[in-house]
Amino acid sequence: MKILGIDPGTATTGYGLVDYLDHEFSLIDFGLISTSKELPHGQRLDLIYRGITDLITRFRPEVVSVERLFFATNALTAISVGQAIGVIKLAIQHQGLAAYDYTPMQVKLYVGGSGKADKTLMKATVKKMLNIRGSQLNEVKDGRREKRKTNKTHFDDAADALALAICHVRKQEQVTKL
Amino acid sequence: MKILGIDPGTATTGYGLVDYLDHEFSLIDFGLISTSKELPHGQRLDLIYRGITDLITRFRPEVVSVERLFFATNALTAISVGQAIGVIKLAIQHQGLAAYDYTPMQVKLYVGGSGKADKTLMKATVKKMLNIRGSQLNEVKDGRREKRKTNKTHFDDAADALALAICHVRKQEQVTKL
Repeated sequence: MKILGIDPGTATTGYGLVDYLDHEFSLIDFGLISTSKELPHGQRLDLIYRGITDLITRFRPEVVSVERLFFATNALTAISVGQAIGVIKLAIQHQGLAAYDYTPMQVKLYVGGSGKADKTLMKATVKKMLNIRGSQLNEVKDGRREKRKTNKTHFDDAADALALAICHVRKQEQVTKL
Repeated sequence: MKILGIDPGTATTGYGLVDYLDHEFSLIDFGLISTSKELPHGQRLDLIYRGITDLITRFRPEVVSVERLFFATNALTAISVGQAIGVIKLAIQHQGLAAYDYTPMQVKLYVGGSGKADKTLMKATVKKMLNIRGSQLNEVKDGRREKRKTNKTHFDDAADALALAICHVRKQEQVTKL
Protein backbone atom coordinates (compact mmCIF):
# COMPACT_ATOMS: atom_id res chain seq x y z
CA MET A 1 0.00 0.00 0.00
CA LYS A 2 1.31 3.41 -0.99
CA ILE A 3 0.62 6.24 1.46
CA LEU A 4 1.17 9.97 0.88
CA GLY A 5 1.80 12.00 4.04
CA ILE A 6 1.35 15.79 3.98
CA ASP A 7 2.46 18.47 6.46
CA PRO A 8 0.57 21.58 5.24
CA GLY A 9 1.80 25.18 5.09
CA THR A 10 1.45 28.09 2.66
CA ALA A 11 5.19 28.78 2.33
CA THR A 12 6.28 25.14 2.70
CA THR A 13 4.22 21.97 2.49
CA GLY A 14 6.20 18.85 3.33
CA TYR A 15 5.33 15.58 1.59
CA GLY A 16 6.46 11.99 2.02
CA LEU A 17 5.52 8.87 0.08
CA VAL A 18 6.08 5.44 1.57
CA ASP A 19 5.18 1.95 0.55
CA TYR A 20 4.08 -0.63 3.12
CA LEU A 21 4.43 -4.22 2.02
CA ASP A 22 4.80 -7.43 4.08
CA HIS A 23 5.04 -5.39 7.30
CA GLU A 24 7.98 -3.37 5.93
CA PHE A 25 8.08 0.32 5.12
CA SER A 26 10.10 1.61 2.18
CA LEU A 27 10.72 5.15 0.96
CA ILE A 28 9.33 6.20 -2.42
CA ASP A 29 9.86 9.97 -2.41
CA PHE A 30 9.96 12.90 -0.03
CA GLY A 31 10.40 16.62 -0.26
CA LEU A 32 8.71 20.00 -0.29
CA ILE A 33 6.18 22.02 -2.23
CA SER A 34 7.23 25.60 -1.64
CA THR A 35 5.83 28.95 -2.81
CA SER A 36 7.49 32.39 -2.80
CA LYS A 37 5.88 35.00 -0.62
CA GLU A 38 6.27 37.55 -3.47
CA LEU A 39 3.59 35.70 -5.49
CA PRO A 40 -0.10 36.69 -5.23
CA HIS A 41 -1.90 34.68 -2.58
CA GLY A 42 -4.32 32.97 -5.01
CA GLN A 43 -1.39 31.82 -7.13
CA ARG A 44 0.39 30.35 -4.10
CA LEU A 45 -2.73 28.37 -3.18
CA ASP A 46 -2.97 27.14 -6.78
CA LEU A 47 0.69 26.02 -6.72
CA ILE A 48 -0.02 23.94 -3.60
CA TYR A 49 -3.19 22.49 -5.19
CA ARG A 50 -1.28 21.61 -8.38
CA GLY A 51 1.69 20.26 -6.42
CA ILE A 52 -0.51 17.80 -4.51
CA THR A 53 -2.49 16.88 -7.66
CA ASP A 54 0.80 16.18 -9.46
CA LEU A 55 2.09 13.93 -6.63
CA ILE A 56 -1.14 11.91 -6.64
CA THR A 57 -1.25 11.44 -10.44
CA ARG A 58 2.49 10.67 -10.56
CA PHE A 59 2.71 8.16 -7.69
CA ARG A 60 -0.90 6.95 -7.32
CA PRO A 61 -1.02 6.52 -3.53
CA GLU A 62 -4.03 4.60 -2.18
CA VAL A 63 -4.55 6.95 0.73
CA VAL A 64 -3.45 10.35 2.00
CA SER A 65 -2.56 11.23 5.60
CA VAL A 66 -2.68 14.94 6.50
CA GLU A 67 -1.68 16.71 9.70
CA ARG A 68 -4.70 17.74 11.73
CA LEU A 69 -4.18 21.13 13.28
CA PHE A 70 -6.26 22.14 16.26
CA PHE A 71 -3.99 24.59 17.95
CA ALA A 72 -2.04 27.62 16.77
CA THR A 73 -0.11 30.35 18.56
CA ASN A 74 -2.27 32.99 16.88
CA ALA A 75 -5.35 33.33 14.66
CA LEU A 76 -3.36 34.64 11.65
CA THR A 77 -1.22 31.49 11.55
CA ALA A 78 -4.29 29.29 11.96
CA ILE A 79 -6.11 31.04 9.08
CA SER A 80 -3.04 30.85 6.84
CA VAL A 81 -2.38 27.13 7.49
CA GLY A 82 -6.14 26.54 7.25
CA GLN A 83 -6.13 27.89 3.67
CA ALA A 84 -3.30 25.52 2.70
CA ILE A 85 -5.16 22.58 4.31
CA GLY A 86 -8.32 23.60 2.40
CA VAL A 87 -6.73 23.43 -1.07
CA ILE A 88 -4.81 20.25 -0.16
CA LYS A 89 -8.03 18.48 0.89
CA LEU A 90 -9.73 19.76 -2.26
CA ALA A 91 -6.94 18.33 -4.45
CA ILE A 92 -7.29 14.96 -2.64
CA GLN A 93 -11.09 15.06 -3.11
CA HIS A 94 -10.74 15.96 -6.81
CA GLN A 95 -8.45 12.92 -7.28
CA GLY A 96 -11.05 10.67 -5.63
CA LEU A 97 -8.87 9.66 -2.67
CA ALA A 98 -9.70 9.47 1.01
CA ALA A 99 -7.93 11.88 3.37
CA TYR A 100 -7.23 10.83 6.94
CA ASP A 101 -5.91 13.33 9.44
CA TYR A 102 -3.87 12.87 12.57
CA THR A 103 -2.82 15.26 15.31
CA PRO A 104 0.92 15.80 16.05
CA MET A 105 0.28 13.95 19.32
CA GLN A 106 -1.05 10.87 17.50
CA VAL A 107 1.96 10.91 15.13
CA LYS A 108 4.36 11.03 18.09
CA LEU A 109 2.52 8.18 19.76
CA TYR A 110 2.27 5.86 16.74
CA VAL A 111 5.70 6.60 15.24
CA GLY A 112 7.88 7.69 18.18
CA GLY A 113 6.23 5.32 20.68
CA SER A 114 5.15 8.09 23.06
CA GLY A 115 3.05 11.26 22.88
CA LYS A 116 6.06 13.04 24.35
CA ALA A 117 8.63 11.96 21.70
CA ASP A 118 10.71 15.00 20.72
CA LYS A 119 11.59 16.22 17.20
CA THR A 120 15.10 14.70 17.27
CA LEU A 121 13.83 11.25 18.21
CA MET A 122 11.02 11.44 15.63
CA LYS A 123 13.45 12.36 12.87
CA ALA A 124 15.93 9.65 13.84
CA THR A 125 13.12 7.06 13.92
CA VAL A 126 11.83 8.04 10.46
CA LYS A 127 15.35 8.05 8.98
CA LYS A 128 16.10 4.62 10.42
CA MET A 129 12.77 3.05 9.41
CA LEU A 130 13.09 4.27 5.84
CA ASN A 131 16.86 3.88 5.58
CA ILE A 132 17.40 7.54 4.63
CA ARG A 133 21.09 8.39 4.47
CA GLY A 134 21.66 11.10 1.86
CA SER A 135 21.11 14.79 2.31
CA GLN A 136 19.03 15.44 -0.77
CA LEU A 137 15.30 15.92 -1.15
CA ASN A 138 13.01 17.05 -3.93
CA GLU A 139 11.62 20.54 -3.91
CA VAL A 140 8.79 21.76 -6.13
CA LYS A 141 9.44 25.50 -5.87
CA ASP A 142 6.83 27.75 -7.53
CA GLY A 143 5.91 24.81 -9.76
CA ARG A 144 9.43 23.75 -10.81
CA ARG A 145 10.80 20.44 -9.51
CA GLU A 146 14.46 20.31 -8.48
CA LYS A 147 16.78 18.26 -6.26
CA ARG A 148 18.31 20.18 -3.41
CA LYS A 149 20.54 19.56 -0.46
CA THR A 150 18.48 19.44 2.71
CA ASN A 151 18.90 21.92 5.48
CA LYS A 152 17.49 21.16 8.90
CA THR A 153 14.19 23.07 8.60
CA HIS A 154 13.43 21.62 5.19
CA PHE A 155 14.20 18.11 6.30
CA ASP A 156 11.94 18.59 9.34
CA ASP A 157 8.89 19.39 7.17
CA ALA A 158 9.50 16.41 4.90
CA ALA A 159 10.20 14.11 7.89
CA ASP A 160 6.92 15.21 9.52
CA ALA A 161 5.14 14.21 6.31
CA LEU A 162 6.84 10.80 6.24
CA ALA A 163 5.89 10.29 9.91
CA LEU A 164 2.25 11.08 9.03
CA ALA A 165 2.29 8.36 6.34
CA ILE A 166 3.75 5.82 8.80
CA CYS A 167 1.27 6.92 11.50
CA HIS A 168 -1.65 6.08 9.23
CA VAL A 169 -0.50 2.48 8.76
CA ARG A 170 0.24 1.96 12.47
CA LYS A 171 -3.08 3.44 13.51
CA GLN A 172 -5.07 1.38 10.99
CA GLU A 173 -3.25 -1.82 11.99
CA GLN A 174 -4.14 -1.20 15.61
CA VAL A 175 -7.78 -0.58 14.67
CA THR A 176 -7.82 -3.88 12.73
CA LYS A 177 -6.30 -5.81 15.63
CA LEU A 178 -8.86 -4.60 18.16
CA MET B 1 -19.06 46.90 -12.99
CA LYS B 2 -20.30 43.64 -11.44
CA ILE B 3 -18.84 42.75 -8.04
CA LEU B 4 -19.21 39.46 -6.18
CA GLY B 5 -18.95 39.71 -2.39
CA ILE B 6 -18.23 36.59 -0.32
CA ASP B 7 -18.54 35.95 3.43
CA PRO B 8 -16.74 32.59 3.87
CA GLY B 9 -17.68 29.70 6.14
CA THR B 10 -17.68 25.89 5.90
CA ALA B 11 -21.34 25.44 6.89
CA THR B 12 -22.60 28.67 5.30
CA THR B 13 -20.89 30.94 2.81
CA GLY B 14 -22.86 34.12 2.07
CA TYR B 15 -22.66 35.65 -1.39
CA GLY B 16 -23.93 38.88 -2.90
CA LEU B 17 -23.72 40.19 -6.45
CA VAL B 18 -24.19 43.87 -7.17
CA ASP B 19 -23.81 46.03 -10.23
CA TYR B 20 -22.36 49.54 -9.98
CA LEU B 21 -23.22 51.84 -12.88
CA ASP B 22 -23.37 55.66 -13.05
CA HIS B 23 -22.71 55.89 -9.31
CA GLU B 24 -25.70 53.69 -8.51
CA PHE B 25 -25.71 50.25 -6.96
CA SER B 26 -28.22 47.63 -8.02
CA LEU B 27 -28.83 44.12 -6.75
CA ILE B 28 -28.20 41.17 -9.07
CA ASP B 29 -28.41 38.18 -6.73
CA PHE B 30 -27.75 37.22 -3.14
CA GLY B 31 -27.91 34.10 -1.06
CA LEU B 32 -26.04 31.23 0.52
CA ILE B 33 -23.86 28.29 -0.37
CA SER B 34 -24.48 25.82 2.43
CA THR B 35 -23.13 22.34 3.15
CA SER B 36 -24.47 19.69 5.55
CA LYS B 37 -22.21 18.73 8.39
CA GLU B 38 -23.06 15.05 7.76
CA LEU B 39 -21.06 15.13 4.50
CA PRO B 40 -17.34 14.21 4.42
CA HIS B 41 -15.14 17.26 4.89
CA GLY B 42 -13.49 17.03 1.46
CA GLN B 43 -16.90 16.95 -0.20
CA ARG B 44 -18.06 20.04 1.71
CA LEU B 45 -14.96 21.94 0.55
CA ASP B 46 -15.65 20.80 -3.02
CA LEU B 47 -19.28 22.02 -2.80
CA ILE B 48 -18.02 25.46 -1.74
CA TYR B 49 -15.43 25.46 -4.56
CA ARG B 50 -18.09 24.45 -7.13
CA GLY B 51 -20.63 26.91 -5.71
CA ILE B 52 -18.23 29.85 -6.18
CA THR B 53 -17.12 28.61 -9.61
CA ASP B 54 -20.77 28.37 -10.66
CA LEU B 55 -21.55 31.94 -9.49
CA ILE B 56 -18.55 33.31 -11.43
CA THR B 57 -19.37 31.47 -14.66
CA ARG B 58 -23.09 32.29 -14.37
CA PHE B 59 -22.84 36.02 -13.54
CA ARG B 60 -19.32 36.93 -14.83
CA PRO B 61 -18.37 39.49 -12.15
CA GLU B 62 -15.28 41.60 -12.92
CA VAL B 63 -13.93 41.38 -9.39
CA VAL B 64 -14.45 39.47 -6.15
CA SER B 65 -14.42 40.92 -2.64
CA VAL B 66 -13.81 38.45 0.21
CA GLU B 67 -13.91 38.97 3.96
CA ARG B 68 -10.42 39.10 5.41
CA LEU B 69 -10.32 37.30 8.73
CA PHE B 70 -7.53 38.07 11.15
CA PHE B 71 -9.16 37.26 14.41
CA ALA B 72 -11.09 34.26 15.73
CA THR B 73 -12.33 33.27 19.16
CA ASN B 74 -10.42 30.00 18.92
CA ALA B 75 -7.93 28.18 16.69
CA LEU B 76 -10.44 25.52 15.61
CA THR B 77 -12.79 28.16 14.15
CA ALA B 78 -9.87 29.94 12.47
CA ILE B 79 -8.64 26.70 10.85
CA SER B 80 -12.16 25.78 9.70
CA VAL B 81 -12.93 29.21 8.18
CA GLY B 82 -9.38 29.27 6.76
CA GLN B 83 -10.12 26.08 4.80
CA ALA B 84 -13.27 27.63 3.29
CA ILE B 85 -11.31 30.82 2.40
CA GLY B 86 -8.61 28.65 0.78
CA VAL B 87 -10.97 26.85 -1.64
CA ILE B 88 -12.88 30.09 -2.36
CA LYS B 89 -9.64 31.89 -3.32
CA LEU B 90 -8.62 28.89 -5.40
CA ALA B 91 -11.94 28.97 -7.32
CA ILE B 92 -11.45 32.73 -7.97
CA GLN B 93 -7.86 32.09 -9.14
CA HIS B 94 -8.98 29.22 -11.41
CA GLN B 95 -11.54 31.56 -13.03
CA GLY B 96 -8.81 34.15 -13.67
CA LEU B 97 -10.32 36.86 -11.45
CA ALA B 98 -8.69 39.12 -8.89
CA ALA B 99 -9.67 38.68 -5.23
CA TYR B 100 -9.61 41.68 -2.92
CA ASP B 101 -10.12 41.24 0.78
CA TYR B 102 -11.42 43.57 3.42
CA THR B 103 -11.62 43.32 7.19
CA PRO B 104 -15.02 43.60 8.94
CA MET B 105 -13.81 46.98 10.26
CA GLN B 106 -13.19 48.30 6.72
CA VAL B 107 -16.64 47.10 5.61
CA LYS B 108 -18.28 48.91 8.54
CA LEU B 109 -16.33 52.05 7.73
CA TYR B 110 -16.98 52.14 3.97
CA VAL B 111 -20.58 50.90 4.03
CA GLY B 112 -21.92 51.92 7.44
CA GLY B 113 -19.92 55.18 7.61
CA SER B 114 -18.13 54.25 10.84
CA GLY B 115 -15.86 51.44 12.07
CA LYS B 116 -18.31 51.09 14.96
CA ALA B 117 -21.48 50.61 12.88
CA ASP B 118 -23.51 47.74 14.38
CA LYS B 119 -25.10 44.77 12.58
CA THR B 120 -28.60 46.29 12.56
CA LEU B 121 -27.40 49.53 10.97
CA MET B 122 -25.26 47.65 8.42
CA LYS B 123 -28.17 45.48 7.38
CA ALA B 124 -30.58 48.42 7.13
CA THR B 125 -28.03 50.34 4.99
CA VAL B 126 -27.51 47.42 2.60
CA LYS B 127 -31.27 46.83 2.26
CA LYS B 128 -31.94 50.49 1.54
CA MET B 129 -29.05 50.91 -0.93
CA LEU B 130 -30.09 47.84 -2.91
CA ASN B 131 -33.83 48.29 -2.47
CA ILE B 132 -34.30 44.83 -0.93
CA ARG B 133 -37.86 44.30 0.30
CA GLY B 134 -38.79 40.67 0.01
CA SER B 135 -37.87 37.89 2.38
CA GLN B 136 -36.49 35.40 -0.13
CA LEU B 137 -32.94 34.53 -1.01
CA ASN B 138 -31.27 31.82 -3.03
CA GLU B 139 -29.67 28.91 -1.29
CA VAL B 140 -27.33 26.42 -2.94
CA LYS B 141 -27.60 23.59 -0.41
CA ASP B 142 -25.28 20.61 -0.98
CA GLY B 143 -25.12 21.62 -4.64
CA ARG B 144 -28.88 22.11 -5.26
CA ARG B 145 -30.14 25.64 -5.88
CA GLU B 146 -33.47 26.63 -4.33
CA LYS B 147 -35.36 29.75 -3.26
CA ARG B 148 -36.06 30.01 0.41
CA LYS B 149 -37.57 32.39 2.88
CA THR B 150 -34.86 34.18 4.80
CA ASN B 151 -34.43 33.83 8.48
CA LYS B 152 -32.35 36.35 10.39
CA THR B 153 -29.07 34.38 10.50
CA HIS B 154 -29.24 33.50 6.82
CA PHE B 155 -30.00 37.05 5.80
CA ASP B 156 -27.07 38.27 7.93
CA ASP B 157 -24.55 36.12 6.03
CA ALA B 158 -25.90 37.24 2.65
CA ALA B 159 -26.05 40.89 3.77
CA ASP B 160 -22.42 40.72 4.93
CA ALA B 161 -21.49 39.51 1.44
CA LEU B 162 -23.43 42.35 -0.22
CA ALA B 163 -21.71 44.84 2.10
CA LEU B 164 -18.32 43.41 1.04
CA ALA B 165 -19.18 44.03 -2.63
CA ILE B 166 -20.22 47.64 -1.87
CA CYS B 167 -17.12 48.13 0.31
CA HIS B 168 -14.87 47.26 -2.63
CA VAL B 169 -16.39 49.98 -4.84
CA ARG B 170 -16.30 52.63 -2.11
CA LYS B 171 -12.71 51.82 -1.18
CA GLN B 172 -11.53 51.85 -4.81
CA GLU B 173 -13.32 55.16 -5.48
CA GLN B 174 -11.59 56.72 -2.52
CA VAL B 175 -8.22 55.41 -3.72
CA THR B 176 -8.90 56.93 -7.16
CA LYS B 177 -9.89 60.31 -5.66
CA LEU B 178 -6.71 60.65 -3.59
